[in-house]
Amino acid sequence: MLFKKHLLTAAIGLSLSFSVQASELETLINMLHENGMVTDEQYGRLMGELAENKATKEQEKAEINEKLAEATKPSDIEISTNGGLSLKTRDGQFSTKVGGRLQVDAAAYGGSPDMGDGTDIRRARLYISGELYRDWGYKLEYEFDNDSITDAFISYDGFENYQIMAGHFKDPFSLDYMISANNTMFMEQALPTAFNAGRHMGLMGARNSQYWTLAAGLFGDTVGNTGGAEDEGWGWSSRGTLSPVNEPGKVVHIGLGLNYRDLQPSNEVRFSQAPESGVSGVRIVDTSTLTNADTMLKTGLEFATVMGPFTAQAEYIRTSVERDNISDADFDGWYLQSSYFLTGESRPYKNGVFGGIKPDRRVGDGGIGAWEVAMRYSSLDFNDGAIEGGEADSMTLGLNWYPVPMLRFSANYVHVLDVDGGTFDGQEPDVFQVRSQWAF
Amino acid sequence: MLFKKHLLTAAIGLSLSFSVQASELETLINMLHENGMVTDEQYGRLMGELAENKATKEQEKAEINEKLAEATKPSDIEISTNGGLSLKTRDGQFSTKVGGRLQVDAAAYGGSPDMGDGTDIRRARLYISGELYRDWGYKLEYEFDNDSITDAFISYDGFENYQIMAGHFKDPFSLDYMISANNTMFMEQALPTAFNAGRHMGLMGARNSQYWTLAAGLFGDTVGNTGGAEDEGWGWSSRGTLSPVNEPGKVVHIGLGLNYRDLQPSNEVRFSQAPESGVSGVRIVDTSTLTNADTMLKTGLEFATVMGPFTAQAEYIRTSVERDNISDADFDGWYLQSSYFLTGESRPYKNGVFGGIKPDRRVGDGGIGAWEVAMRYSSLDFNDGAIEGGEADSMTLGLNWYPVPMLRFSANYVHVLDVDGGTFDGQEPDVFQVRSQWAF
Amino acid sequence: MLFKKHLLTAAIGLSLSFSVQASELETLINMLHENGMVTDEQYGRLMGELAENKATKEQEKAEINEKLAEATKPSDIEISTNGGLSLKTRDGQFSTKVGGRLQVDAAAYGGSPDMGDGTDIRRARLYISGELYRDWGYKLEYEFDNDSITDAFISYDGFENYQIMAGHFKDPFSLDYMISANNTMFMEQALPTAFNAGRHMGLMGARNSQYWTLAAGLFGDTVGNTGGAEDEGWGWSSRGTLSPVNEPGKVVHIGLGLNYRDLQPSNEVRFSQAPESGVSGVRIVDTSTLTNADTMLKTGLEFATVMGPFTAQAEYIRTSVERDNISDADFDGWYLQSSYFLTGESRPYKNGVFGGIKPDRRVGDGGIGAWEVAMRYSSLDFNDGAIEGGEADSMTLGLNWYPVPMLRFSANYVHVLDVDGGTFDGQEPDVFQVRSQWAF
Repeated sequence: MLFKKHLLTAAIGLSLSFSVQASELETLINMLHENGMVTDEQYGRLMGELAENKATKEQEKAEINEKLAEATKPSDIEISTNGGLSLKTRDGQFSTKVGGRLQVDAAAYGGSPDMGDGTDIRRARLYISGELYRDWGYKLEYEFDNDSITDAFISYDGFENYQIMAGHFKDPFSLDYMISANNTMFMEQALPTAFNAGRHMGLMGARNSQYWTLAAGLFGDTVGNTGGAEDEGWGWSSRGTLSPVNEPGKVVHIGLGLNYRDLQPSNEVRFSQAPESGVSGVRIVDTSTLTNADTMLKTGLEFATVMGPFTAQAEYIRTSVERDNISDADFDGWYLQSSYFLTGESRPYKNGVFGGIKPDRRVGDGGIGAWEVAMRYSSLDFNDGAIEGGEADSMTLGLNWYPVPMLRFSANYVHVLDVDGGTFDGQEPDVFQVRSQWAF
Repeated sequence: MLFKKHLLTAAIGLSLSFSVQASELETLINMLHENGMVTDEQYGRLMGELAENKATKEQEKAEINEKLAEATKPSDIEISTNGGLSLKTRDGQFSTKVGGRLQVDAAAYGGSPDMGDGTDIRRARLYISGELYRDWGYKLEYEFDNDSITDAFISYDGFENYQIMAGHFKDPFSLDYMISANNTMFMEQALPTAFNAGRHMGLMGARNSQYWTLAAGLFGDTVGNTGGAEDEGWGWSSRGTLSPVNEPGKVVHIGLGLNYRDLQPSNEVRFSQAPESGVSGVRIVDTSTLTNADTMLKTGLEFATVMGPFTAQAEYIRTSVERDNISDADFDGWYLQSSYFLTGESRPYKNGVFGGIKPDRRVGDGGIGAWEVAMRYSSLDFNDGAIEGGEADSMTLGLNWYPVPMLRFSANYVHVLDVDGGTFDGQEPDVFQVRSQWAF
Repeated sequence: MLFKKHLLTAAIGLSLSFSVQASELETLINMLHENGMVTDEQYGRLMGELAENKATKEQEKAEINEKLAEATKPSDIEISTNGGLSLKTRDGQFSTKVGGRLQVDAAAYGGSPDMGDGTDIRRARLYISGELYRDWGYKLEYEFDNDSITDAFISYDGFENYQIMAGHFKDPFSLDYMISANNTMFMEQALPTAFNAGRHMGLMGARNSQYWTLAAGLFGDTVGNTGGAEDEGWGWSSRGTLSPVNEPGKVVHIGLGLNYRDLQPSNEVRFSQAPESGVSGVRIVDTSTLTNADTMLKTGLEFATVMGPFTAQAEYIRTSVERDNISDADFDGWYLQSSYFLTGESRPYKNGVFGGIKPDRRVGDGGIGAWEVAMRYSSLDFNDGAIEGGEADSMTLGLNWYPVPMLRFSANYVHVLDVDGGTFDGQEPDVFQVRSQWAF
């Protein structure tokens, strides 16, 4: 009997390792048994019931835990929206993003030449982008304002930090152009944007890391140029950047870009530029069409730094057009711009470009958003030998207000200091313009 | 000992306020102790175990409740689809809606002049719209049929009942034009739609309440007009409505609209109108281009009422064109239309416009959808002094079938009663046209 | 007392049918009562407490189970993404799908005539489609590359296996054209694609089953043709297919198509064809514009078979143009193409067309994707009597790689064996072209 009792105790001891439930009842029964209040027969029956009920309760608890685990496990797909729509499968295999942007401008002009006051939708885009089976990416973006495809590509992202892209996208060249137009310091890029390399159909490889980036690609023509009997133009472009200092609020960036294009089949090229304003189409400097143009090579130097709320950014771009039986044409331009966040934010930097601003304290949440003041000096020279396209210098003051992430309101005042040469020689237009923007 | 026992009882009493579990065991132990079946030492041990186990069980229950609360709490994002796609964060901060519309028409013409029978996609649109941080709104809609941006704006909705909008949207003017083209009584708006104010780039403030609305805005040009050296045209528009009676199925609406435009830089304007049909482009009345036109002012009076299944709607619009060195031109038009739902539905009304019809009993759910019969008389006068654009009167019969919400099938018969003056003087074309529509 | 005890036992017995909890305590109490350790009064009190606590526990368990049921029930909307975005309500009433495609091509040409090497976005589309109230369907798809609406319709699917469509979609005619351009064996359809019936505004009925399909519709004009004073062209089209063998990996398909068009109002028609390449616009055979053309009738014969990894497909199309006062013109063409999956996949077949390929073993999941080699012979004859548009024969070799579902990379080599007649008589261009594609 003693033996049996010990056996039972041992068995119950095992159960207790799962649960301490009912142990006081067990203790009581043992005491009563020891005190002789229940017979051995009764004691055995009680212990049997005790063990049985313990097992039942354990099972019930296990079932509840299982259901709770099922009920509280994260869903397979994560959805989020902060403008647009974003899906992600939790296994990291797929994602989809639907987004867009709208930039609505109004501008008033002073001085000469005459430029028409008015309004404009500067950009109105929608895109779908995503990831397929973790390693593949895709994007299709359309600009509704001028009915054109912007980004349209397929990418392979299976090698860490490397990306291979095929389709239509920006030639890697020029810091200010590589920055999304949603995130530039001013409403319009600086005068040397006249030398932007644009988007072309191409195949590109890129390497991104914290301290340097390198991108190089081979490019055909712009999308939309229907092919005829002549070969399309082609080119290559590459851009490398170094950021020896790259931490939040502290960045030093230098970059070098090279962009080459064969100008067939038209063998023509033309550069022109507006006074950093998109509403009126008037261009204050213009090389007119350069014929007999075989190839052109653009070289760009980039410098930028972030020190807390302060950003400085500068670029120099030189373009050489090689011409048949005519002396080559060389044009260049540069700008220096800087800004300061009155509300203390820092311009974010990643993969060789600046990103979008998120205010520290949102409007509607006790804050006044982010406020940024900015200043720029730009210069562009289209005069070279017999070509007198004009040289322009301009000064811009800017104010950006980011009440909440995804929204931005800007006011820019541009004063053209001088146009030297070309049709508008000696004229000094002023621009006052404002923009409302959502982008996500 | 007694003291100790009372202390224990007190302690247990506290526990019991959380849970009554095991209290019968406690009672038993107390009884046995009182009956002298367990010793004081044993009693103390039992009570200790009892308290300990009680605590363990309380903790287990709390854990289960916590997990259950987590598992049954509503998700952060609500998704719904009844055509298109709708997301909303449960905190009311963000929402996203992707939707569109398609209107597919076929028309056959009789009488003279010759109008080409055929088919047409009348509207094919997609949009994305939503809310950002509760107080901000956005929309971008594109019309694929004629490759144009329709709505594209950013809005501030942070003041209750007020809305401030910047971007491209309808000038507030004319009831029938303010009603979404998905929800108009007939396939095409009445003849005076020739005076619609259209969409422009602008800045507008609006106030909506149950019994009145007021909207006023300053507008630039239509989007897509690239700016040149001349200033763009501009204008202002305002519309106020009163609805002294406004409850489901019972509405009285009166409205007044004023719309002014400076016609620079072209200083031209032209009005023309088709016989309330969109498939053939033939226009039966046409002022031809009026030159030397400086400004124009449109005035509109609106009246509408809903009495159960019955709707009546009428408008009068007058347009005065001020011309340089030429006498001003005045044109006007009016219509009266009414409809009756054979299946008993009422036309919904909100914020100064009519909304879409939801059938009481859907097809596929035991019903026949909503059936509406409608009749209209329209008149438009383009004759004024030397200008003989023609005057037209027309009568329209309409039948609308809404089998389920989001879908609509319409058949319209238009008989032009008379064209008086202009190229088509004396002619009386007939139109029979049908439309299939989805919209959400 | 005994009676009372039995009553209590009966009551407890009922409770026990819900739960066996605390029964060992009950047993103990009964034993102690029997042994005379607790008085009858004490026994009654204990039993009362026991029953009360049991009820409380039952209620707690029921609450937990209810919450668990709520927490683990499936959500009302299922979301999935494998590229794009897909929603479905679990009651089967609604679904929404947002998807698209991108085809990026590069081509190099050899031989004569001169054709310009280059790149092209062949297709870049987005669509939204879905179901409304189970029985109704909708779709709107836009081609961004040439700014045109492709599919835009409303459908009724309430009759099993039947579908009624109204809107803009493909005339049912020709197997290779009915197959989505995402899924064709080669980058471009065969030479007889010159006779494709295209998309028109129309009303169509279709019947799909495993062993046969039939579709017939009445069609107006292409969307975008603005109506004038003349009636638009119209036509009818029908296609029937038989698949006496139709199981996975084993298909025999025969088809017959008839397509008629009234060529008003222009009474003109022109056929031309490129050498199965989309980058250069040069067309090697071309009937020039045929005037006085009243109507045309196209007849097509289809044959296809699948035997495991092997697919063969052939079509013959004849087009007869009836001309006023001029002898009728008859043109025809045919092709035979076949492919073999080196990796063992079979081309899927459903509703009279071939579908998209899903590789058995994905890249990134231990596989190399699906690899398909293909060969084609095409012939097209535009010579008839006085009309010498040219006759062309070409041979194509193709290689398709499907690394994962939704992605496809293709390389095609086309050799034109001969052009006989027409502007390019005797010339034999070569084409080497590649494509990158995502589609979902």
